[in-house]
Amino acid sequence: MRWRPDWLRGYDRRVAGQDGLAALIVTLMLIPQGLAYAMLAGLPPQTGLYASILPLLAYAAFGSSRTLAVGPVAVVSLMTAAALAPLYAPGSAEYLGAAMLLALLSALLLFGMALLRLGFLANFLSHPVISGFISASGLLIAVGQLKHILGVPATGQALPELLAALFEGLPATHLPTLLIGAGSLLFLWWVRAHLKSSLTGLGVAPALAGNLAKAGPALAILVAVLLVGALQLEQAGVAVVGTIPQGLPTLALPPLDFTLMQQLLPAAALISLIGFVESVSVAQTLAAKRRQRIAPDRELLGLGAANLAAAVSAGMPVTGGFARSVVNFEAGAQTPMAGALTAVGIALGALLLTPWLHDLPQAVLAAAIIVAVLGLVDLGALRQTWRYSRQDGAAQAVTLAGVLLLGVEVGILLGVGLSLLLFLWRTSRPHMAVVGQLPGSEHFRNILRFSVVQSASVLSLRVDESLYFPNARFLEERVGELIVARPEVRHLVLMCSGVNLIDASALESLEAIAERLHSAGVQLHLSEVKGPVMDQLKRSDFLQRFGGEVFTSQYEALCALDPDSTRRALQQTA
Amino acid sequence: MRWRPDWLRGYDRRVAGQDGLAALIVTLMLIPQGLAYAMLAGLPPQTGLYASILPLLAYAAFGSSRTLAVGPVAVVSLMTAAALAPLYAPGSAEYLGAAMLLALLSALLLFGMALLRLGFLANFLSHPVISGFISASGLLIAVGQLKHILGVPATGQALPELLAALFEGLPATHLPTLLIGAGSLLFLWWVRAHLKSSLTGLGVAPALAGNLAKAGPALAILVAVLLVGALQLEQAGVAVVGTIPQGLPTLALPPLDFTLMQQLLPAAALISLIGFVESVSVAQTLAAKRRQRIAPDRELLGLGAANLAAAVSAGMPVTGGFARSVVNFEAGAQTPMAGALTAVGIALGALLLTPWLHDLPQAVLAAAIIVAVLGLVDLGALRQTWRYSRQDGAAQAVTLAGVLLLGVEVGILLGVGLSLLLFLWRTSRPHMAVVGQLPGSEHFRNILRFSVVQSASVLSLRVDESLYFPNARFLEERVGELIVARPEVRHLVLMCSGVNLIDASALESLEAIAERLHSAGVQLHLSEVKGPVMDQLKRSDFLQRFGGEVFTSQYEALCALDPDSTRRALQQTA
Repeated sequence: MRWRPDWLRGYDRRVAGQDGLAALIVTLMLIPQGLAYAMLAGLPPQTGLYASILPLLAYAAFGSSRTLAVGPVAVVSLMTAAALAPLYAPGSAEYLGAAMLLALLSALLLFGMALLRLGFLANFLSHPVISGFISASGLLIAVGQLKHILGVPATGQALPELLAALFEGLPATHLPTLLIGAGSLLFLWWVRAHLKSSLTGLGVAPALAGNLAKAGPALAILVAVLLVGALQLEQAGVAVVGTIPQGLPTLALPPLDFTLMQQLLPAAALISLIGFVESVSVAQTLAAKRRQRIAPDRELLGLGAANLAAAVSAGMPVTGGFARSVVNFEAGAQTPMAGALTAVGIALGALLLTPWLHDLPQAVLAAAIIVAVLGLVDLGALRQTWRYSRQDGAAQAVTLAGVLLLGVEVGILLGVGLSLLLFLWRTSRPHMAVVGQLPGSEHFRNILRFSVVQSASVLSLRVDESLYFPNARFLEERVGELIVARPEVRHLVLMCSGVNLIDASALESLEAIAERLHSAGVQLHLSEVKGPVMDQLKRSDFLQRFGGEVFTSQYEALCALDPDSTRRALQQTA
Repeated sequence: MRWRPDWLRGYDRRVAGQDGLAALIVTLMLIPQGLAYAMLAGLPPQTGLYASILPLLAYAAFGSSRTLAVGPVAVVSLMTAAALAPLYAPGSAEYLGAAMLLALLSALLLFGMALLRLGFLANFLSHPVISGFISASGLLIAVGQLKHILGVPATGQALPELLAALFEGLPATHLPTLLIGAGSLLFLWWVRAHLKSSLTGLGVAPALAGNLAKAGPALAILVAVLLVGALQLEQAGVAVVGTIPQGLPTLALPPLDFTLMQQLLPAAALISLIGFVESVSVAQTLAAKRRQRIAPDRELLGLGAANLAAAVSAGMPVTGGFARSVVNFEAGAQTPMAGALTAVGIALGALLLTPWLHDLPQAVLAAAIIVAVLGLVDLGALRQTWRYSRQDGAAQAVTLAGVLLLGVEVGILLGVGLSLLLFLWRTSRPHMAVVGQLPGSEHFRNILRFSVVQSASVLSLRVDESLYFPNARFLEERVGELIVARPEVRHLVLMCSGVNLIDASALESLEAIAERLHSAGVQLHLSEVKGPVMDQLKRSDFLQRFGGEVFTSQYEALCALDPDSTRRALQQTA
């Protein structure tokens, strides 16, 4: 790892200008997002701003992506709420302390993963599991925000609870709130779907049009604040954000409560993994567009530093955001300096803008969240995955249903568990083919697919998988079956062209196979064993003990064990 | 599955005679084992006998091995004790009920595995984990029995506890007990190590000598019972088995306590898996010697039936025993009828012999257990495994240490967890090689190992592993690195000869790779894609969308993408 970032060399006014413009646009996008995701996480609004200051500086110093924009994101905020709501009352000091502790644990886990090079653990989360989780999260978040649009109280984690609570609250719908919420929803949806093309149609340059469209939520906020103030809607019962302390966060450690840490650990682990996976895939996509590289281990460090910064500055868990990073990239950000400048922008916002945000209706923030997260819901992906692979489709469906019905953590664990189970089930049954010699050639092919010449006394079995513990016993069984079905066989040649590894379990199985074959009057041989596998076999006494030979090729094996058969096959024409 | 066993056809007096002799020998071996393993499990002695009657009949009816001898075995008895001792006082009615419930749960789990074809779950338990577990169990059992040899009270599950308790009890050693115990140990050790060769030296046929040696424990029991009676040793404080109820077990369900079931479930799952693995590997070894087959799913059913029978007849969890099955096989057992006849033998024993066993010293049973289980301890295997593979060696060492220090369940779970982690770590980093054309040939080989011709504009990458979620992102990273390092490359050909599967995660990765390469001005292509993989890819829209071609061979790809390079390579001589 290089500690003096190479982007600092050659940093000049032109690059600074590009970074500065990107920072300005991201700041305009991030202020409403910060407020909204803090509300989604059940935290005071300023928490979202605080989590967008120091964490951005920390990531800029330690991360490896040049354009990733970190901060509070929707799914992580949902997971934060899911972890904390059962423990404390949302908005309370204990709740905020626990959110900071969650960020601290997440930071420690990310550092630990970086130190022990455990970034590969994120691969546990297969694409179908993540896709199912993201869709379900989007739905959960959107449904969860409807209470703010309707202006009714409703709590709950899982979908059935949420829907029941909403349904119960429906008669109490607060009309002014609903008007503001629905209006914001319509406006923001129109901005998202049509503003860019309308502006382009009016002759605005596409890049600028795109950036203006991203400022839609900021515009909605401005209008709503003015409206609430002018019509005195707060007095009419419209829930507003309220007083936000003006100024910067004070630095303080979260409460280091050991029992609480234990309770939060599973959620912190999931938040770290999910945040890391999402962040890395955004960062990689963006880096590739400019032929840059990101280093996953450096990303762990960068995200860890960002969460540590959030933990000590009254923040909440953060990670790289998809939409935000794309905006940063497309607005022309060249270096992590853009992130640092965004932090400055948010800090200025926290210092200067907060008094103006008092009248901001929660319904507008809810509308911004709903429009943002509905883009995450992709139920068509489920059908696609199912069509491609039943197993992957099952994992995705289970994750989706699990997250919706049983909660975030249980859903993800179910999906990962099922993926692993199906994966082990699949690798425990490797493809094996009895092969015979193609007439007129030295090649051996599957007897079920090709018309080949088979020896009566020599059975040739090709294994299309590395041999390791999940499938070792399967090989034993398959060989047992084959030998019982062919009493005339005297030699079995295991063709190992597809075997990249033989672990200790498979070695035991090979020994058992050799011994059992022996007592049945059959000799085991190997052919086409790869170099590294052979090196490892030589470290055991298997090669001395199994009594057979290791042939360079299957053809050589047949030449030695049943020359008549190979001669017959060569003489035939294909 | 065939429900009318084929061995019944052609069953005649000759076969019945062979089965009968084997049954007699196994009965003589099983009576002391039943008593001993019941004591080891903390159960009244008759439990071991009862678990050797109906379960044997049930296995004979439903199992697939012709020679497997089921009943109480050492490691399962240890696991039973480990599961029950924290809950109830050994020997109490609740303890016995819980043991029956454990057998019932084990039966249900085995049936469930048979129904859902989940027998492959046993493959989770790699050879190193099982080997580590068995050695540690042997040590734990042996140390745990020393209290009976010394005649001191000592309880504890893990090794440090056991040793501390023994050390504390040492001053209270009961001399007559120690004399009997040590004498039995010496005698049984001599029988095991030397009796067969001594008898053979005296001209006894080796088979008979072997069978006589197996009856050693029965002989030790006889002598000890006579001695205790003659010298009135019970009155001198030698602990004896005591009154064993005469007769057959009464049929009754275990207490169906739901809370207790939940507590026992993990232990029942491990007992089922370990019992199944041990049983199947013995059965397969024996079946292969006569070119017979065993069906793993039928074994699940057979062992399930045996445990169900144990659960309703005041028994304890059972499985196939290694030593016992070998004796059965070598004594000439031909069909499951031998098992059924053994059950009759044990039933007769329970009816007629029990009064005579009152004076049997517990020290003799302990000695029999120690001599039996020390054969399980194989610490040399640890060194061997470590030499063969560091990863497998680590899994074995962790299991061994875990079982000794933290208990059976924790130790096995640690070992399995580590195995899976190392396995996933290994498969998450598949071997990939940049390949070039061998001069004068159409073959492509690793550029690091061979002197090959590389195209400047076409990068050829061979992947030596199926592509699935644990390694999908690794491929993304590797491709990213390669492309950044080679700015002149315009085509990347992924050579898929070693790819047996592309799951949905890997498909997403391929799409991401194609897209990222595209935005970097590089086109992705595939070559040598196997038929089944191609079939699956066709079920997605990847092939339409990725913009590249699928070439039959790597050579064909280079001919199409950089004909100059292939011509140059062909003109060179090797």
